[in-house]
Amino acid sequence: MEIKVVKQILAWNEDCSAEIKALLKDNRIFMVNVMGSPGAGKTSLTIELAARLAPAYRVGVIEGDVAGQIDAHRIAALGIPVVQLNTEGACHIEAMSIKHILPYFDLHQIDVMFVENIGNLVCPAEFNIGEDLRLALLSVPEGDDKVEKYPLMFSVADALILHKYDMLPHFAFDDKKVEAQAKAINPTANVFRVSVPQDSGLTELAAWLSDQIAAKRAAKQPEC
Amino acid sequence: MEIKVVKQILAWNEDCSAEIKALLKDNRIFMVNVMGSPGAGKTSLTIELAARLAPAYRVGVIEGDVAGQIDAHRIAALGIPVVQLNTEGACHIEAMSIKHILPYFDLHQIDVMFVENIGNLVCPAEFNIGEDLRLALLSVPEGDDKVEKYPLMFSVADALILHKYDMLPHFAFDDKKVEAQAKAINPTANVFRVSVPQDSGLTELAAWLSDQIAAKRAAKQPEC
Repeated sequence: MEIKVVKQILAWNEDCSAEIKALLKDNRIFMVNVMGSPGAGKTSLTIELAARLAPAYRVGVIEGDVAGQIDAHRIAALGIPVVQLNTEGACHIEAMSIKHILPYFDLHQIDVMFVENIGNLVCPAEFNIGEDLRLALLSVPEGDDKVEKYPLMFSVADALILHKYDMLPHFAFDDKKVEAQAKAINPTANVFRVSVPQDSGLTELAAWLSDQIAAKRAAKQPEC
Repeated sequence: MEIKVVKQILAWNEDCSAEIKALLKDNRIFMVNVMGSPGAGKTSLTIELAARLAPAYRVGVIEGDVAGQIDAHRIAALGIPVVQLNTEGACHIEAMSIKHILPYFDLHQIDVMFVENIGNLVCPAEFNIGEDLRLALLSVPEGDDKVEKYPLMFSVADALILHKYDMLPHFAFDDKKVEAQAKAINPTANVFRVSVPQDSGLTELAAWLSDQIAAKRAAKQPEC
């Protein structure tokens, strides 16, 4: 399957998130910004959530990477509409790129758009891309000191995913400390402990996400 | 032990790496830029290398973090001179900050300065900070697709450290593929497989690093 590949146009400080929100609203699309370090498991989580949201919701994916199309091919192989965004050096996705890339999809066929941001625990948290919801992944092998070291990411997230949770026996990772630190700077954040290989936590996370999508759609019914 | 904490002054595009190199040369200091994702194990590796370089070389550490002083305290507790650099949001260390921070040390008492960069596989690779040598860490739990996704980091490194190598049985990580991809874009890069808990690969890495330091010092003897 051929993957559409779009290069990021850098347009610093141009915030077109309001335009994106309008476009998403017109098409009744709920957009999820998936953020985390390189290798935190963003693609795996997106694939698992897409499977659990179906058939109620049809999913599309904007796959962000500095270079390459590895994950876009993984997603396309599952029959999920995907467009690859290559930032060619840039360390985050900007709203301008989302505005540019959305028309590559048949938006009438999508209910939920996942945006897999660049693997980076710093910069993506600074840029509003017009999303409805932000997921911040922290995988157990990364260590339990990341909330203190990278506070912005955990302060802007709607949900914190403690990922690769099956690795807990192999690392000194105090998940209660991480949760407490995240809640201290972000009291309304939801925390989920997720392991894809063990299929744990995914049902709860998908159910919560479905609730968020349903609430947004209920609130944004087109007027008669 | 009180830790000196310095905030990064952002001065985009000001390259003072030549000034830093002159200062390091005057003080016969070899500087190592340690880079990798959040949680790749930069601090642990730095501590292990410092222990193995002693007593031949006296080590200092510039500890870079967006926020907090966790790792600086770990290093100070070992009696290693350390200054914490907090970038307060910035995703990489710039040369300007190194120039600013070096005078906080007694430079006559240091032979090797490790700079632990911000946990980020993208931006730190773009900024020359006056270093003599670059280490790029890739930990096994991050996955074996990172050279393709983040090529710049692996193209500028003098050595690639496949870290947390003891985790190999728990992840689908093809280390030979990673090595081949790194060598394809960076033929002279040295590749080391390292596990701190198993104390493997550290002796070889420290020996190679000692050779690099000795070669530099031999080449840069002060003239009579």
